[in-house]
Formats: sequence, structure tokens, C-alpha cells
Amino acid sequence: MVDISRGSALGSSGASELFQLLRDGAPRTRASLAASTGLARSTIAARVDELMELGLVSPVADAASTGGRPPSQFALNPGARIVLAADLGASHANVAVTDLAGTVLAEHGEPLDIAKGPEAVLGWMVDAGLALIDGLGRDRHELAAIGVGVPGPVEHSTGRPVNPPIMPGWDRFDVPGWVQQHLEVPVLVDNDVNIMALGERALAWPQVEHLMFVKVATGIGSGIISGGLLQRGAQGIAGDIGHVRVARGSDVPCHCGNRGCLEALASGPAIARALREQGIEAHTGNDVVELVKHGDIDAIQAVRQAGRDIGEVLTACVSLVNPSVVAIGGSMARAGEHLIAGVREVVYMRSMPLATEHLVIAASAAGENAAVLGASMLAIHHVLSPEGIDALAAR
Amino acid sequence: MVDISRGSALGSSGASELFQLLRDGAPRTRASLAASTGLARSTIAARVDELMELGLVSPVADAASTGGRPPSQFALNPGARIVLAADLGASHANVAVTDLAGTVLAEHGEPLDIAKGPEAVLGWMVDAGLALIDGLGRDRHELAAIGVGVPGPVEHSTGRPVNPPIMPGWDRFDVPGWVQQHLEVPVLVDNDVNIMALGERALAWPQVEHLMFVKVATGIGSGIISGGLLQRGAQGIAGDIGHVRVARGSDVPCHCGNRGCLEALASGPAIARALREQGIEAHTGNDVVELVKHGDIDAIQAVRQAGRDIGEVLTACVSLVNPSVVAIGGSMARAGEHLIAGVREVVYMRSMPLATEHLVIAASAAGENAAVLGASMLAIHHVLSPEGIDALAAR
Repeated sequence: MVDISRGSALGSSGASELFQLLRDGAPRTRASLAASTGLARSTIAARVDELMELGLVSPVADAASTGGRPPSQFALNPGARIVLAADLGASHANVAVTDLAGTVLAEHGEPLDIAKGPEAVLGWMVDAGLALIDGLGRDRHELAAIGVGVPGPVEHSTGRPVNPPIMPGWDRFDVPGWVQQHLEVPVLVDNDVNIMALGERALAWPQVEHLMFVKVATGIGSGIISGGLLQRGAQGIAGDIGHVRVARGSDVPCHCGNRGCLEALASGPAIARALREQGIEAHTGNDVVELVKHGDIDAIQAVRQAGRDIGEVLTACVSLVNPSVVAIGGSMARAGEHLIAGVREVVYMRSMPLATEHLVIAASAAGENAAVLGASMLAIHHVLSPEGIDALAAR
Repeated sequence: MVDISRGSALGSSGASELFQLLRDGAPRTRASLAASTGLARSTIAARVDELMELGLVSPVADAASTGGRPPSQFALNPGARIVLAADLGASHANVAVTDLAGTVLAEHGEPLDIAKGPEAVLGWMVDAGLALIDGLGRDRHELAAIGVGVPGPVEHSTGRPVNPPIMPGWDRFDVPGWVQQHLEVPVLVDNDVNIMALGERALAWPQVEHLMFVKVATGIGSGIISGGLLQRGAQGIAGDIGHVRVARGSDVPCHCGNRGCLEALASGPAIARALREQGIEAHTGNDVVELVKHGDIDAIQAVRQAGRDIGEVLTACVSLVNPSVVAIGGSMARAGEHLIAGVREVVYMRSMPLATEHLVIAASAAGENAAVLGASMLAIHHVLSPEGIDALAAR
């Protein structure tokens, strides 16, 4: 990456900067912190005290410490605060409370139509979140931030959905502003596939800097992490691959008004429709998954072909983004290896050898938990950033 | 972007951190620096003095200053140091000396075959660069860094080309190590299309955070700036779109061993070959450009179709990366609006409206200077980073 400075933390307290070294969870001594920062021992001591007062850093048992001396090692205390993570889908919503390591402490999900509009859905989210916090016996003041995923494009800097096709009433709605009338903490909002990429990486590929998460369900979309950072693009719609044209389908109409879109050929409903045209009873993606699980050969072939169509588009993605991991998730991934086999077949045949030499194409490890886990990560990244720590200290 | 901390500057001198506020070139007072950093006036004064001693910051004439008082405003002094920028092409090389604002002070280019190998080519670069510096009457010690673009994939962190197809003898060659035997300054190496993206942005789109530069010449490639950062991918080959398959060309063999690659249909040599098959005398991309400039209707139609093929691939790119600017450069862009008209035709027809609502597709403004300008930017970004300033201070 180019060394373009992206805003220094000169205005911050110093303790928040020091904390950036501790947020990985590894224990450190005052001496090692002084050595790696070049700061005076007295400065380190004062800043560690400040972080311990906030509860963000705790002493760690030290085998080498003797008798009455104070413990000499410190580490992030993941239990210091909690965050609320919400995955608001088209027809189902999940909320979870996690600690600062992303460990789920409590969760709840139920059918909920996103088309009920922002006040109804966000009101449910606030109520359900508070019920989880109360149920855990935690104080509401321990809540440090809220991460929310929604099924549409989001202007991440303001948390407002922008022209979301399946979210009537949500266009430009000030999600953080509304939620903060009830819970006065930072609210981070993002597209559901973006947060699934964050969740997948946190769970299965924490060291990977270049990861693409592909969701194959009623729609098809992707979230891209490049250079360790989620890529959102100019309008927050980076990764929106559902309407890229596939060669095979030039005559298949898509709900977007074009023809031959990936989503019109390889989504769950598209595979079901193709099977119906063969006289097979399948109405939804779930029906297709069930047929595959029962060994229906036509369904297996249709899913494999959908994988090839997705692979055709992913070949361009792999060339453009050069990821080291492509994770395939979403409800259609439950059809097992057939979908991924089709993807691999085409990507490995069509890509330049250098681009695929070290490329892993794998089923999502986070599975159905990817979105909630990613929403938690979105909130935690903010809480543990220099700005987030400064905000906690100022409360 | 997610607030993942990307290495703090805790180890730096403080002056280098302060300098990040000044690197934009705008004049500031000690008081305004104190206000925006929260640092004590005495600390600011000491750090400004340190930067002035390095020559990186200079007093700026202040209309309001009175009589014998010292000048109260300071700004980056772009003349404090020079950098060497080199664009090493397949058969031609350019070097330039620029100041820290990227202004070219002297330049030189000549035919040079990259296949002569790294020692011959880099030796030429060092000699030509030193001759330019001497010719300017500048001291060699004023050289702060060297930026180099090469026509192949590069592992940017080490500056080593990786499996470059048209650079025999360069695979894994330690470019920085070799150059530093002659010039002991940081050497930054990158792929030529990546540095063209940097150059195009610096010249024409300095405020744009999401830009894609497409080079159409003997080959076809792209450089992607996303969130203000150049995207290199896991193997340094992000943007390598030349071998994505185009629907129209499924039977056209490509030198990569596959069929139907974009480069086999829309590169300069590919257009020339298509014209020859129509009985028209055209052997190179330059021949095609000359035919177009003379109004040859077959050549114009062939270039327009190449634009459509490129547009087909860029439609996927636009969906994936969501840029706000796509700049088309390289030698075939000299064919004028016909190439870009073809690109626009397909991208605007095939993309989702939200992705193209604010999308600009334009000819490169930097033109043939994009690469040298970008190599200069690569070097300058490094020099002005906290690490770069610390290194200058330590010399």
C-alpha cells in the first residue's frame, strides 16, 4: 500500500494510541511497551494506569512474579465492555451481545420483515438487544457500540441505506440517529455481505489480508477485504456482482431489467426455476438444497452449473482483486461441495496461473453466523480504535 | 473503511507525526498546529524547528506580520529534496527528477530493451538519473528516494518482480538491493499500470478516492485505487484484467494458452490482426492509431468494437470495485474517442444504475506522463510518511 497518511491520532490522549499495541490481546510488560514505543517509562506507567481505570486493560498472572510485587504483565480485557450485533435480513433478524473479543454471550433471532420499515425493525432491535443485556445481568452502561448489517447498499460514513431495492422506507434513513435516541453509543451500519466478509475473516482467516466473501442465496453478492480493509467503493456498493452478465444466459431476463445477469442464472430461485422447467417440483432455493441432499441428480447438475456461472464471474474478480481466499456462503452453500466444485472448475481453468497458485476457494466456515459475527467485528473495530478509546475515556 | 489500526507511529520522533499535517502544502501557524493537535505550544515550537532544520518546512511570507517579528506561518518546502522517478517499459525507458510536489525538474528517455536484464537496465537508470541530478546542479545528497515502474508483477514489500512474463532475468531480482549499492536511498518498485494510476490521480483527480486506470496498449491491464490506497492484492497482480474472457471471442487463441481473453481481442496487436484479416495493412497498434487518425472506417469500427470488449470486462470491474472514475490510457487511447465510446456504450448499458450514476469514464489526462509521474508519487509518498521523515532526520 502507498504510505498515504490517513489521519494521525495527534489529537488523541496517548493512552488510546498505546492501546493499539495491546488490542491484539497478547500480554505485555511496561518495559516491553516502553521499548516498542520509545516512550518514557513514566509515560507508559501513566497511560497503562489510565487504561486500567477504564477496565480495558487488566493485569495478567505472571509466572515469574515474586511475592508481594504488583503483577507486571497487562493485556486487553475482552470482558470490559459489550457490543450489540444485529443482522437484519430480508425476512429474518438476529441480534447478539458479544464481548470485545467477539465471543457471543447471548443471542436471539426471529422472523421479521425488513419491509416493515426502519422504525419498526430498529425498535425491535433495540428492545431485543436490551432484553439480552438485561438477561445477562450486565449493566446497559457497559454497552460500547452497536454494529448493524442490512440487506442493501449503505453509505457507511453516515450509516444511511442508499436506494436499497428490497428495503421500502429505508432510503437515506438515519439509522444511527434513530437508534441513538434510545441507546447513546456509536452505531455502525453496513451492507450484510460486507459484514459477512468481516465475520468470515475473524472466525477462519484472521491473518489473511485479501479475502472475498461470496453470498449465494436469493440474491448473489460479495464483500471484499483488501489490504486488510473492507472495500466499499464510491457509493458503498463495491462487490455487487449479481448483475454481471454470464455468457450462457444471454436470453434469460433478470428482475433488474437486463438479461443474462448472474443472479438470473445462479441464485436459489433461478436454479429452482430451471428445475421446474424440467418438470421437477422446486420453488425456492431451500427446495433445491433439499433435493441435492436427497441425491437428486438433476438438482445436483443444476447446482454444479450455477457454480460454473458464479465461477465465470469470479474469474474476473480474482484477476481484478487478487485475493488469497474466496469463501462461498449464503443459504445455497448448504448444497455442499457441488456448488464449490463448479466454481473451482471454471476459476482454475480460466484464471492466470499466478493468480490461482495460492488461491483457496472454500465453503464459508462461519456459515449462518457470519453476519452477526461481522456486525460484532464492525462495532469492536470502532470501539478499540484510537477514536473509540478516546470516546470511552471521555464518557 | 474499518478502523483497523495499520501500525501506529508511536516509535517516531513526533516531528514526523506533526509533519503529516503540513504535507498537504497549506501554510499553518504554530497556534493552529497547537490547536489541531492538542500539543503544548513549546512542543510544537521544538518540532517545527526540527522540521525547519531538515529544510522540509519553510517560513511563508505573512501579510499580517509586522516589522522585526519572525514569520509566523510555515508550509512544506517542496524544493527541500528531490526524488528520481523511472518508468522502465518493455522497449523504452524514461527517468525524471522531481521535487517533493511531483514537479518535473528534468527528464530523459530513450529506447531500452527490458530483456537486457536488471543489471544493464538498472545501471542505465542510475547513470541517467545521476546525469540529470548533476545537470540540474543539485547535490546527490538531496536525493531522498527512487520510484521505479516495471512492466510486470512486483512484490511491492520487497521490490522484487515475480514471474514477469516479458522481463527475462528479472524474476525475484532484488531491485532495491542492487540500486542501493549505487544510491543509498529508499527504492520503491511497482507494476507500471499501478504507478500510472497513481500518476493519473495526482494530476487529474487528487480528491478522488476510488479510481481505476486502464492501460490499453500491446497488453491490457489496470491499476486500482480504492479508499485512497493502491490495491495490489495477495500476489501484487490485482487489476490484471487482460486475460478475462470476452463472450465474442470464444474461439480466438491468446498467447497465455487460453481462448477468448480480452487481450487477444482488444489490444493494439489484436486489432491490427483483425484488420489484416480484412485485407487492411496494419501490423501494430500504432498502425491502427494512424489509420483511425486518417479516418479509415474499418479501423474506426475495429477500435470501437475493442472498446466494447473492454467495456464488457469493465462492467464486472465497475460492479466489483465501484469506482467514481475510470481513466483509459495507454498507446491505443491515442485513437481518440472511438475506443472510449465503445467502453461507455457497454458499461452504461450493462451496469446497475447506482454504480454508474456518478461514474466518469474518461481518457487519461496524464497521457504518456502518467507512469513517470506515478513513479515520482510512489517515492514522494514514502519520503513524506512518518517513517520517511524519521529516516531523513536520522541520516
